[in-house]
This record gives sequence, C-alpha cells and structure tokens, in this order.
Amino acid sequence: MIRLNCDAGESFGSWKMGLDEAIMPYVDMANFACGFHAGDPLIMDKSIQLALKHGVSIGAHPAYPDLVGFGRRSMACSLEEIEAMVIYQIGALQGFATAHNATLSYVKPHGGLYNDMMKNERIFEAVAKAVARVNPRLKLMILSMVDTSVHERIAKALGLELLYEVFADRAYDDAGLLVPRTQKGAVLHDVQQVLARLKLLQKEGVLETISGKKIALRADTLCVHGDNEEAVLLVETLRKSM
Amino acid sequence: MIRLNCDAGESFGSWKMGLDEAIMPYVDMANFACGFHAGDPLIMDKSIQLALKHGVSIGAHPAYPDLVGFGRRSMACSLEEIEAMVIYQIGALQGFATAHNATLSYVKPHGGLYNDMMKNERIFEAVAKAVARVNPRLKLMILSMVDTSVHERIAKALGLELLYEVFADRAYDDAGLLVPRTQKGAVLHDVQQVLARLKLLQKEGVLETISGKKIALRADTLCVHGDNEEAVLLVETLRKSM
Amino acid sequence: MIRLNCDAGESFGSWKMGLDEAIMPYVDMANFACGFHAGDPLIMDKSIQLALKHGVSIGAHPAYPDLVGFGRRSMACSLEEIEAMVIYQIGALQGFATAHNATLSYVKPHGGLYNDMMKNERIFEAVAKAVARVNPRLKLMILSMVDTSVHERIAKALGLELLYEVFADRAYDDAGLLVPRTQKGAVLHDVQQVLARLKLLQKEGVLETISGKKIALRADTLCVHGDNEEAVLLVETLRKSM
Amino acid sequence: MIRLNCDAGESFGSWKMGLDEAIMPYVDMANFACGFHAGDPLIMDKSIQLALKHGVSIGAHPAYPDLVGFGRRSMACSLEEIEAMVIYQIGALQGFATAHNATLSYVKPHGGLYNDMMKNERIFEAVAKAVARVNPRLKLMILSMVDTSVHERIAKALGLELLYEVFADRAYDDAGLLVPRTQKGAVLHDVQQVLARLKLLQKEGVLETISGKKIALRADTLCVHGDNEEAVLLVETLRKSM
Repeated sequence: MIRLNCDAGESFGSWKMGLDEAIMPYVDMANFACGFHAGDPLIMDKSIQLALKHGVSIGAHPAYPDLVGFGRRSMACSLEEIEAMVIYQIGALQGFATAHNATLSYVKPHGGLYNDMMKNERIFEAVAKAVARVNPRLKLMILSMVDTSVHERIAKALGLELLYEVFADRAYDDAGLLVPRTQKGAVLHDVQQVLARLKLLQKEGVLETISGKKIALRADTLCVHGDNEEAVLLVETLRKSM
Repeated sequence: MIRLNCDAGESFGSWKMGLDEAIMPYVDMANFACGFHAGDPLIMDKSIQLALKHGVSIGAHPAYPDLVGFGRRSMACSLEEIEAMVIYQIGALQGFATAHNATLSYVKPHGGLYNDMMKNERIFEAVAKAVARVNPRLKLMILSMVDTSVHERIAKALGLELLYEVFADRAYDDAGLLVPRTQKGAVLHDVQQVLARLKLLQKEGVLETISGKKIALRADTLCVHGDNEEAVLLVETLRKSM
Repeated sequence: MIRLNCDAGESFGSWKMGLDEAIMPYVDMANFACGFHAGDPLIMDKSIQLALKHGVSIGAHPAYPDLVGFGRRSMACSLEEIEAMVIYQIGALQGFATAHNATLSYVKPHGGLYNDMMKNERIFEAVAKAVARVNPRLKLMILSMVDTSVHERIAKALGLELLYEVFADRAYDDAGLLVPRTQKGAVLHDVQQVLARLKLLQKEGVLETISGKKIALRADTLCVHGDNEEAVLLVETLRKSM
Repeated sequence: MIRLNCDAGESFGSWKMGLDEAIMPYVDMANFACGFHAGDPLIMDKSIQLALKHGVSIGAHPAYPDLVGFGRRSMACSLEEIEAMVIYQIGALQGFATAHNATLSYVKPHGGLYNDMMKNERIFEAVAKAVARVNPRLKLMILSMVDTSVHERIAKALGLELLYEVFADRAYDDAGLLVPRTQKGAVLHDVQQVLARLKLLQKEGVLETISGKKIALRADTLCVHGDNEEAVLLVETLRKSM
C-alpha cells in the first residue's frame, strides 16, 4: 500500500499557507513544519489536533533556519549544526505530540535540507544521527532513487527504518532522479496521467520516466500537495481511485 | 537544603555569554535557554552534555521570542501563544535531553515572561498548563513571595509541583517583593552580606528586608549568576560555606 | 481633500498577504512594511515599483521586531530602542526609494507601535525624533483624536508635520477614541454607512460617534484596507464617490 | 597609502563582540554590520557616533540573513534576493549616517556573501548593482587577486569604484588566493612578519606567497581585526609603523 504524504502546518503567524483542513481527509501522513521554515508554536499545537482528528500519521518536517527563504535555499551548515537543528525541531514537535497524547511517527526533512541530504551522504548521516538520537523508532523519509544503498547502509547502522517517497506529479529521468522544474514536462498537471503512474507503481512497482523507460522504484509513500483547491482536488481524486 | 540555580546556555551562534563551564561545578540546577531569547541548537546540545558531566539538574528556561531584547522585554502575547511557546521550547530542550539519555527536571521561565507570570495569574496559568501538558512531572520554578496562594492553587489543580526561588543578591521590600534595580541598594555586592542572608534563610527560613524587617519566605533554591569571573567567585564562596 | 491610505507590502518570503496590485489604483498613499513585522527586501523593492506605477505616495510603516506576532503585540522596548528601530526601518525603505528614484513622503507606525505611541507621549516622542533625525521633511501620521495638542507640540518642536488619520470603518466613542474591536458595532460593514461618514467628514469635518453625537476630527487621510476582494471593492466604491 | 579597515558593530542585543572603542583610534575605515548577521539598530546608531568621534570612514557590511551563523554560511539566494538584501542593509545604515549628518563611504560585503561574490561573478554583479542603485558614489570593497579584470569590468559598467583589500595576517598561494584556514600556516600570528608584509606591499606593491614567490597585488586597504586585546595590539603596532 502506497500512502499519501503532504506538507502541512506551513502557515506562520498571520500568514496563511496551505489548505490543511481540506487536505487532511485525503492523506495518510502529514509533514508538519517545526518553526524553522514555517510553523509557529500555536500552529504546531493546532496541527497535531488536526492530525488526530483525521487519524493522520504525524511527521516532523525540519528545515534550515530560513523563514524568508521558506527553507528552500541550501545553506552551508556544518554537520554538527545540522544534527543539532534536526534534534531541536523534532523535539519541539514531539512536545506538542506529547501534549496531545499523540505519536510522532516519522521525519521528512524539508526543502533545501532534503535536497542537500539526498546529494551529500554526510549531510544525510547528520540528519539520520539526529533522528536516531531523539528516537530511533521514528522513520526517516527519503527520495526513492534507483540506487539508495548508501542511505540504507547509514540508516541500518543507526537502527533506523527508511520510508521511500515518490513524486506522482513530477517527471523522472532514466537514472530515477527528478527532472528539474526548469525543464519542460517536469511537472505533470493531468490527473489521469498522475493516476496512471500511481497505479503502475502500486501494481508493478515501476515508474515510467520522461523518455518512456520503466524503472523500478521502491515506493512507500507518494508526495502530494494541499497548496490550493486544484491540488486538493487532485489528491481527493487520487485517494478515491486507490 | 537550598539549592543553587543559574541561567546557562545563553550564548548564541558566534556570540558568547556566561562562563558556563566555570559555574557548573558550584551549582545544583542549570536553567538552559531554549532558542527564543538565547541558545541555539548546537549550544543546547553541548549544554546538556555539560550538565551531565557535572551532575547538575537540567531545567528549561523558556522565553518570549525576542533575541535582540534577550527575552527581557514584556510582550503582549495571547495566553494561547504563551502556552504554545512554552511547550515548543520545553519540547526542544527535551529533545536534547533524550538524545543524551538525560532527564529534564524543571522549568524556569525567563526574563519578561517570568516577570509577567508573577504579576498576572492568567499568564502564570498559561505557563503552568504548558508544563503540565508536556510533562506534569516537571517542576515549575517561581519567585518566592509572602503570598503565593494563587500560584499554589493553580499548580495544584494541574498536578504540578512548584519550586520557590529567592534572590540572594537582591534586596526585598517588606511585602516580599524584589526592590527594583533602579532603586539604591537593590543589588547586594558584598559577599559576606549575601552569605549571611543565605544562612539566615537556611536556618530560620526568613529573609531580612531592606527596612530591616524579617519576613518568612519559602526557599527551595537560590538564584545565582555565572556572567563573569566575579560572579563565579561569589557562587564558589557561597557553595563552600553552605 | 481627504486622501486614502492603505497598508501594503505585507507579504513575507513565500507568504502572501494583501491584494496590493488590486488596491493601488484606488488609494493615494501606501504604507509599506519595512521588514520588522512583514515585508522582506525583495517585496520592498517591488512595492516601490508598484507605488510608482500608480502614482501613490510612499510611506514607511515601521513596527516592533515581531514577525510571528505581525507587529501587533505591544513590546516593552526602551525609548532609545524605539528611536533606533524606526530610523533603521525608514532608512531601509528609503534605500529602495532612492534605488527607484522615488520619494519617501511620510511615516505611519504599525500595529503595536502605533497604539503605544498614541497612548504614551514619550513613545510618540521617540518615534517623532527618529523621523526628524532621518528626514524632517517626512510627515508623521497619527490617529486623529479630539485632543492632539500633546502630539502637535512635540512634532512642532522637532519641525515635523503631522498627518491626521481617521478610520472610516471603525466606530468612535464620544471622546473620539476608537471603539475596541471586542465591542459590538466596533467595525462598520455597510458600504453606504462608511460612505456617509466619509462625506460628513469631508463636508463638515465631523464624525458621528457610536452614541450619535457629532465630534469634530481633523482628517487628512482615511485608513482603508486591501486585505481581500470585499475590502478592495469597498475602497473602489469610496474612491468613486469621493 | 594603504588604509586599515576593520569589521565593527558586530554586537547584537545583549551579546558583545569586538573591542570597537579600542580599535577605532588605529583604523581608517570601519565596516559596520547592518542587522542581518550582527548589529541591531541601537548598535548601528552608536557605531556611527563612534566612527564620527574617531574620524573613521564609514562602510556598510551587508550579509546574508543568518544571525545564528553570523553570516558566514553560504546561502543559495537568488540574484534578485541578493540585490534587494544589499540595498536594504545599505539603506538602513545610511539612515543612521543621515541621522548623524555623517557620510557613508563604501560597502564591504561580509562573510559568506563576500566569499560567494568573489567566486561567482553573477553574485558580484548583483551586489554591485545594489550599490550602484542606492548610491553610485559608494565604493565597493573586494578581495585583491592577481586577476580582477571581471570585477573591474562589471564595476565600470555600473559606474562604481572598487577598493582592493589585502589580508595582512593571512597566507596567500601563488595564484593570489587566500590559503584556506584549514591549511597549516594559513594565519600569520607573528607581528613582525605581518609588518614586513605590509611594508613590502606599501613600497613595492608585492606580497610574498606561502611558497616564497612574490606576486603583485593592488592594495587599497588592509583588513585588520579588533576581536580581542591581542588583535588590537597588533593593529596598534601596524599603525605606528606605517
């Protein structure tokens, strides 16, 4: 079973972002911002309540400390800084989970930190160590790729379980990497096409690349979005046909 | 037994504050900044290690979100904002405690938040609720005053234990309130005088006010400082004569 | 002639707020956030362009340093901190005005700072001194009240000109103060009613209070909002009937 | 004449950094933090006063928005973000200069932004455009290198004058680049050695590299430090022997 995961809790103070209440009924897992790229304490408190109401798995979505850049910009942080900032953010969200008698289930790094950890195994190791130090029962979500042996090795050494994420609405190249957003065809807008991809992934465990080739990708979860009404509708459609 | 507590972990990034390593051998409890007025994740990580090394009790020192004002300025936050910001900060520090297999023992609000909660029982209740929601075994430190019945009632209703703090180096008025720093004689600089006060407090449970009157104050802990070498020396002297 | 002023440039990073492009055609003056409660450098740069495009007067909208609270929360800053933070923010916006060969015309403090300066003349003086120090040709916008003699005296001593602001959609009490939002009838939602108030103010210089009494209020400008489509529509209607 | 420049105004709120008062008598130019990596409004206000008192040239020291990283970490900002953040920070410091009737003379980017602009000409161009847009009479300080033709071309096209900076206490390789701090011998601690380098630079316009080779480097200014007493003493010695 492929589960749907969605970023959430990304408002900040008076600024709203994401249709959290609308998307929750259709997803299995929600990645909640922890205050570094979005999400203030009040929002985190309410997010946990919302997740509980809908029986959605709660994930921490730690990021680089960059509100104005929404955590999307790579930052040349040291490995020990990364390890510590991930512990801090998981701990903060865990505080709200505990306050609601809820369970924190997994960690999905956000934006620049996610990209950096997929490109640099030392950064991945710093993130994984942080997770293992706070709670080795937390799973760590990574981008599914054709070869993830390095990540598996590091996670195993730390006693961590990985969750493999696939992007349903993004094109992949033959190496199993995401086609950059700057390239034509990088983002799929047609619901039927996304749906077809998902079904292929569920039944055969393969994904069709931008060149038409089929590659095998481990897929525990599919990344979906709740940014606007169109996005929510897509997820609702996905959910109903799964 | 009156225990000595000290603010610590109040550096931030490249800025240093406080002689944490020097003061640790002489205190029983350390109140660690949680990132809102001071203390970044890396410092929090190292602070827990330092506390463990010296067998010092670990306390969370949550504050208003105000780095440039060092959390000293009162901010007109809503009660639910206060409750959430305290949960967030305790959770973050708890993350590091867990990572080091250490125990978080108590919470002492910092600066403006501490002053506001002692002046306004609704703010106190918001802080207390936050502590109770995260972990009701955490004790909550408050300023010892002649009448703390309101605080006791609120804490009891939430199942929280209070810790009463006295300032050894600050003058008190006959109502048991701290003499404002702007007033002459508000801060005691003479070690022998501070020492004499401490002994009186330990033996008879009373404190001499600025007018010479003796008032009874419950004293679980004495607030000391590790800001500079002179301050550390005072604490060393206190410790050795206790 | 009563001019319409509107807060603008209050997005931040990836978070959007306010329909700036939609409201600009209908207002005379725009108060641009300067980075402390909202508005990042890129937004400020684009805001000046937008103001120039529509021939709108450019005002600085300095605030307390409080992104998560959107500058709405009162903060117990010292007078010299307030003076310096206002200089900083005006200077920053002036930088963008200069970069676009545009003119900065006035200053309207935001949220908590605006409220605090209207309640406390020492805070008003700190703000006014900041404006005078950066550029005494900048006008300073204040809330019009029955008695503003204190503000006039302070402004005059510093060589500053004041702009008096009235809220068209807010009820006033007989003392000429805004009825608190918590009170029934505090906010007027009926366009015709707002319009009638504006006309009375323009023709006779008086405003009808919540009790029906008419009070004289100096009105250089009317505060309007561009938060949502309904608000923009109200302003369009006001503009067309002025 | 080679002038001495020094970073200053790098305290923040309650945190102190740098012996600004001690170093000012010995330097010609001070690069003042503008709030993004260090320096709050109050500190900036006082810094300008200090510079005026000592007749020191005032420079803006803009940085990436990264207080906890002290602006040292590279951040993957867009070119338009960089241009806007530099305008913002120059504008803010200009506000204080204007308030004191002082002149802002030059801009020296800080830390990660300085390194990035020296490595990437598009980033350099974004910085240079920002300076030119705010005030083309401001000079822009860059790292002197054997080949700076690209920077000269960009500056010339924008009508900007460059200032070439040499590090007296850092070793250079034969290509005229700074030897990384991680390498042995990267930092010179011997006053006499630093002094000898400075004299050679002044008389012959050449610098001895780590391999003993002499390379020609344009040197308008020498970067010195006021971080601690030893550093101040070095600068005092340099000054007296120039």
